[in-house]
Amino acid sequence: MGQPTDTVKYILPEDKIPAAWYNIQADLPAPVPPVLHPGTGQPITPADLAPLFPAAIIEQEVSQERWIEIPSPVRSIYRQWRPAPLYRARRLEKALDTPAKIYYKYEGVSPAGSHKPNTAVPQAYYSAIEGVKRLTTETGAGQWGSSLAFAGALFNLEIHVYMVKVSYQQKPYRRALMEAYGARVVASPSGETNAGREILKQHPDSTGSLGIAISEAVEIAAQDDSTKYALGSVLNHVLLHQTVIGLESLAQLELAGDYPDIIIGCTGGGSNFAGIAFPFMGAQLRGETPPVRFVAVEPAACPTLTKGKYAYDYGDTAHLTPLVKMHTLGSSFVPQGIHAGGLRYHGMAPLLSHIVELGLIEPRAHTQLDCFAAGVAFARTEGIMPAPEANHAVKAAIDEALRCKEEGTSKTVLFNLCGHGHFDMQAYIDYQAGKLRDTEYSAEEVAMALAGLPAVG
Amino acid sequence: MGQPTDTVKYILPEDKIPAAWYNIQADLPAPVPPVLHPGTGQPITPADLAPLFPAAIIEQEVSQERWIEIPSPVRSIYRQWRPAPLYRARRLEKALDTPAKIYYKYEGVSPAGSHKPNTAVPQAYYSAIEGVKRLTTETGAGQWGSSLAFAGALFNLEIHVYMVKVSYQQKPYRRALMEAYGARVVASPSGETNAGREILKQHPDSTGSLGIAISEAVEIAAQDDSTKYALGSVLNHVLLHQTVIGLESLAQLELAGDYPDIIIGCTGGGSNFAGIAFPFMGAQLRGETPPVRFVAVEPAACPTLTKGKYAYDYGDTAHLTPLVKMHTLGSSFVPQGIHAGGLRYHGMAPLLSHIVELGLIEPRAHTQLDCFAAGVAFARTEGIMPAPEANHAVKAAIDEALRCKEEGTSKTVLFNLCGHGHFDMQAYIDYQAGKLRDTEYSAEEVAMALAGLPAVG
Repeated sequence: MGQPTDTVKYILPEDKIPAAWYNIQADLPAPVPPVLHPGTGQPITPADLAPLFPAAIIEQEVSQERWIEIPSPVRSIYRQWRPAPLYRARRLEKALDTPAKIYYKYEGVSPAGSHKPNTAVPQAYYSAIEGVKRLTTETGAGQWGSSLAFAGALFNLEIHVYMVKVSYQQKPYRRALMEAYGARVVASPSGETNAGREILKQHPDSTGSLGIAISEAVEIAAQDDSTKYALGSVLNHVLLHQTVIGLESLAQLELAGDYPDIIIGCTGGGSNFAGIAFPFMGAQLRGETPPVRFVAVEPAACPTLTKGKYAYDYGDTAHLTPLVKMHTLGSSFVPQGIHAGGLRYHGMAPLLSHIVELGLIEPRAHTQLDCFAAGVAFARTEGIMPAPEANHAVKAAIDEALRCKEEGTSKTVLFNLCGHGHFDMQAYIDYQAGKLRDTEYSAEEVAMALAGLPAVG
Repeated sequence: MGQPTDTVKYILPEDKIPAAWYNIQADLPAPVPPVLHPGTGQPITPADLAPLFPAAIIEQEVSQERWIEIPSPVRSIYRQWRPAPLYRARRLEKALDTPAKIYYKYEGVSPAGSHKPNTAVPQAYYSAIEGVKRLTTETGAGQWGSSLAFAGALFNLEIHVYMVKVSYQQKPYRRALMEAYGARVVASPSGETNAGREILKQHPDSTGSLGIAISEAVEIAAQDDSTKYALGSVLNHVLLHQTVIGLESLAQLELAGDYPDIIIGCTGGGSNFAGIAFPFMGAQLRGETPPVRFVAVEPAACPTLTKGKYAYDYGDTAHLTPLVKMHTLGSSFVPQGIHAGGLRYHGMAPLLSHIVELGLIEPRAHTQLDCFAAGVAFARTEGIMPAPEANHAVKAAIDEALRCKEEGTSKTVLFNLCGHGHFDMQAYIDYQAGKLRDTEYSAEEVAMALAGLPAVG
């Protein structure tokens, strides 16, 4: 009769919401290369960042402290959906007939449906207490933009979002969510900024990219003192805020009496992967726990870690940001319009890139058709529809579980289900209708994209 | 700086998932009028229902027992999202500047995003253990269809959904969710059934209705022994399964040290309202608790309780169902294509209708523009985007809170936020673009719709 083996949920009481974020920089064997001023080639100072970010955020960006206290108003807001559940995917395990144990941390329970409010709320909070009136930002698929719109509504901040044009067209529901929260949403490249106008002049049909949208948001923020800029991934403070995911997972796996052999997350800018991985990685670096395999999964259509170069590059297309050392496909690279819009970024979090170079992370790329197939298999067993981005982690988790079956070993796999796909059903419609194509880049295409890297560092 | 007063979450440990559903029939001062066979005019027997429903469901449909045990496999599946959170909406209270306390039970945490899996799972479970291979059903907005598709995937049942045409067109994302779960979805009226063909002959442009879709689903189920029919609202067993909502809320309000003065739910077929209200109403009927005002909110565009007649009528348009005594607008009534598709039903749960007649419930109707305005206000304070159906409850809760402010009284309001609106963002797009219209029916229009009621009872 097909009675399912049950999915098991591990919940934590509210007083187990972490009291501090974890900063992995305190435990790394080598420091992250400095961020450079594009004009001077010298390391930037906090003062250089002051036009763009609130002081508290800049302090976190450069901090080497292991633990950074989460302000009590932020924890109070987290409490609406945190601690987020950790599940043991026993129905999926049974369907795969694998001896592996598969756990997933589910971040889709937040009001915006993804992990992004974990950093949107503190960014809005610090902005509000420092008197900021307006935040500009970019968004790809819209997970980040809708999260900042949500946080902005709570703190009475005006939110102004440059949304990558292909997602603006593919994902009207995310845009509607941002607008319902009261945010202003503009398709990028737009005619509102020099950066946008310049791109449109050269490529009138540009589908946009996160790099272009960042240029537009930064340009507007730099013009005015009461306007700051908020970024949804890539930077140290963003990765820091996301560590609540891994800290809770540690406590929940302790409840389950288990410890992961493999931890998996998808990577666009790197924040959800870092969020789940860093607390476990820190324990390993401090020699407190056995070694774990950390698997970072990116789309084959934007293969930053697997085909990019570790080099100094700009975070945006118009070169308004400082230079950061990261895995990059070049700041002019415009990835194809795949549905996992949140993963279409030419670069990678410098902190994550550095750790990849230290040999602590296995990068891996998957094509979108494989990822959607994994997502549908997951939905039919676990019931939750993953966001297209999260499907990359699902795919790798299923692969690891199937490998366990082949090898006859029982590994414990933990992955981050960073968001639900309820706003992304057009992607599933296109997938089911056979309309999605796979794309991978040749060595020549990648070499061409990398040719324009700045000669620094 | 606008630091929000925090929303408070009340969670329960998993062992507080109710062990039994509550059957209010055991506590009613007068029995519900019998269901009549349309041919004989005599009360129907369980045997009459056997072609359509599994035996366990029929037994629950006619049971007078106060408590009906929840099978352990069903409780195991509930555990993925239950106990669902109860929130105190302090951010909304602050924005309204009201002395009222507003609590909401949030059913959007289920995999399908609404309360409907509470009954889809037991219906699929009982079908599976009785050897059923396929379930047919109708769906309006798609909350029910997607929930049955989810439950069907867990129990390897084939799910066949007749979706009201206007929703099929307005809500492609719900349809995609059903299809991702593996269900087959057909726009209703369809050419697949006699009932559908008959309607299309008379009204080729019919936008469909729940009554028509029920006819189609029932017709198919009656043709074949291994196919049964599942209904997402209206019937006693459905309302029974939904009482987990109210039972958990009772325990959570005890945690909060509070008890409601007013309980609010939206009503289409009546199941989510019954789910939150009946356990409190039962305690009141048994004299254990003080009286509560129970407010049932329906759309002005489908005013079953506020303008319909309490009379025997068919549950479907093609008159394939038995006759039930309920508030009805007539089985040929096709409500306008408002976005709260789940509330577009010509009738009402007979059990709920009976209790309205007993004077225990205050029915109320609101127009959709007022409801969307309330939903947006709710999203901007509480962060959660309500489904268009749930907006009716939000609107009434805000009204009651504002009345408290006017009167200077502090009442405790509890409402059921029965689902999130993430699949319904087209409705919010249309609302924000000023494209939605309000409709109310004149006394003449209602009288005309009621003219065709059967002369029974």
